[in-house]
Amino acid sequence: MLMFVLFLAICAVPAAAGLFFKPGEWYRTLDKPSWTPPDWVFPIVWAALYLLMSWAAARVASLPDNDLALGLWSLQITVSTLWSAVFFGLRRIAAGAAIIVILWLAVAATTAAFLAHDRIAALMMVPYLAWGAVALALNLWIMKRNPQPA
Amino acid sequence: MLMFVLFLAICAVPAAAGLFFKPGEWYRTLDKPSWTPPDWVFPIVWAALYLLMSWAAARVASLPDNDLALGLWSLQITVSTLWSAVFFGLRRIAAGAAIIVILWLAVAATTAAFLAHDRIAALMMVPYLAWGAVALALNLWIMKRNPQPA
Repeated sequence: MLMFVLFLAICAVPAAAGLFFKPGEWYRTLDKPSWTPPDWVFPIVWAALYLLMSWAAARVASLPDNDLALGLWSLQITVSTLWSAVFFGLRRIAAGAAIIVILWLAVAATTAAFLAHDRIAALMMVPYLAWGAVALALNLWIMKRNPQPA
Repeated sequence: MLMFVLFLAICAVPAAAGLFFKPGEWYRTLDKPSWTPPDWVFPIVWAALYLLMSWAAARVASLPDNDLALGLWSLQITVSTLWSAVFFGLRRIAAGAAIIVILWLAVAATTAAFLAHDRIAALMMVPYLAWGAVALALNLWIMKRNPQPA
């Protein structure tokens, strides 16, 4: 339970990054695909993902030899903090896409490492992988259709 | 060794945030104290701190029951990623100061947790605590002397 609270506290950091670097006028005027989720969907999805990934990490934290698995979890949460800052803060669409690729790979590695310890923890990461794929597709679509300053 | 590389890879994320959100024209024109280190000092200090904190975390990772200690380490590195984005990206000086306070507390908690496992690992965190105090003092000084939009 202590570890669940600690992992959730760590998730509060990228959540704060999301609050600081919000979609504003610039994001609204971007050319986006028809399947772009409405803005209110994102915080709800992320809240659910934070709960799931924190619970999954807490399960793995209670098992032995979990250093690599939890280290990868730390990597993915740190990368995710960087993404909103670069995409919404700097409005660097291509850099944002590169960061999401790294994020997705880090989440996939975390999920694989969790699987070696606990099948349920790995399953709890699957929605995150799915959402990461949606976010990557959205970021790449936006990159293709919106000219960027060099 | 694997864990050291993994921790260092995690440190690459706040380092990348530092590269994205650099001190530029805005920072140069701020009213700063006479003891402000020159710009070139910061990346060198941070590189040294990243090496030290990654090595310290790798030492603790090799010991049993390290979940809380490494969880706190993850918290501090995630908070540090947020700081450059908010201070240099958004130019929110007061929010930056609040984040450094949280960061310093997270580093102090990490150091205390490391101490329970390994005295050398805790010692390796001391320069980070010292630098955090300098950074906090600098951020607070800048906050006091530079008017902020509400």
